[in-house]
Amino acid sequence: MTVISGASGTGKGTVCKKLLAELPQMFYSISATTRKPRPGEVDGKEYFFITVEKFKTWLAEEKFLEHAEVYGNFYGTPAHIIEEKRNSGVDVLLEIDVQGALNVMKKCPDGVYIFLLPPSLNELCNRIKNRGTESPEVLQRRIDSATAEIAVGKNYQYVVVNDTVDAAVDKIKAILTAERCKVERNLADFEHFENSATN
Amino acid sequence: MTVISGASGTGKGTVCKKLLAELPQMFYSISATTRKPRPGEVDGKEYFFITVEKFKTWLAEEKFLEHAEVYGNFYGTPAHIIEEKRNSGVDVLLEIDVQGALNVMKKCPDGVYIFLLPPSLNELCNRIKNRGTESPEVLQRRIDSATAEIAVGKNYQYVVVNDTVDAAVDKIKAILTAERCKVERNLADFEHFENSATN
Repeated sequence: MTVISGASGTGKGTVCKKLLAELPQMFYSISATTRKPRPGEVDGKEYFFITVEKFKTWLAEEKFLEHAEVYGNFYGTPAHIIEEKRNSGVDVLLEIDVQGALNVMKKCPDGVYIFLLPPSLNELCNRIKNRGTESPEVLQRRIDSATAEIAVGKNYQYVVVNDTVDAAVDKIKAILTAERCKVERNLADFEHFENSATN
Repeated sequence: MTVISGASGTGKGTVCKKLLAELPQMFYSISATTRKPRPGEVDGKEYFFITVEKFKTWLAEEKFLEHAEVYGNFYGTPAHIIEEKRNSGVDVLLEIDVQGALNVMKKCPDGVYIFLLPPSLNELCNRIKNRGTESPEVLQRRIDSATAEIAVGKNYQYVVVNDTVDAAVDKIKAILTAERCKVERNLADFEHFENSATN
């Protein structure tokens, strides 16, 4: 399981989209939400749209890796769907905010945690500004919160600077290749040699 | 510093040669030896050819990361040369036998340790057989010793199966890219954001 996270305005969405286009065998984990679908949104594509009752049942059954309430709607990452995919040998990609990722880290220490950094604070400010016409106070609050989120990135395993989407995606692909080469993920290879040698 | 190691017959030499051809900015660390140069061997290319006196001086000055005596000749990995390169920001590649790598691991825990595996025990036997016309007993001893070396590979960080040289080199390059993305190697990036934010 690979978790890609980063402060808002870092470009997580664009990077994940490109990554999935290049690695179509990866399963992109989508959240469950109790909010109503917006026009064009499809159940099972952008989100799993579920009722508040179902959300509460899943929550009681500990079916969420992490969950949050935003503006009165519930959002959660369904662990059982990720688990199903992982058990069948499928790589799972999770795109998640900084706070959510920290919670997932506690529950899944064997995941690969990648933090995306914007190329510079200036660039981050520009990206946040370009998102909407907010008041200077709101903008400053968003920038402060993004800066605080960046400090949390030190708890991740890997950091990738998103200067260009292509370069960031290449680095993430290299991280996935390297993680597949970790000895602890390949102990079966060593056992295979030991067994062949004794036969 | 990247250490590539593996049992004899795994193809370390060929893989390192290809890797260096693709990453010419890497410094390939060569050993110092007291044995005489063979025809065609150049001091500073295949080995640093040094006298027994100089070897003993370097040994007393703890200038070797590891050393060994083979058939009456001394071999050692000069730490000071590697240190010089690393301090000037140059990536260093070390190709080293299994026992030597274990010693280097203790002294340089921040290195990247990659273990090369042959595709199969059969393939390893073939490669060892093709190296010379030894007696069945000597062959069996070499195969046993290679099998024992493979078991040590579990102590490394990464394992790369050398099924084709190109694929193995690509994986090693991905490992180097991923290692450069490790958070602990990029703390300066985070400090940079913290400093910009407070200014």
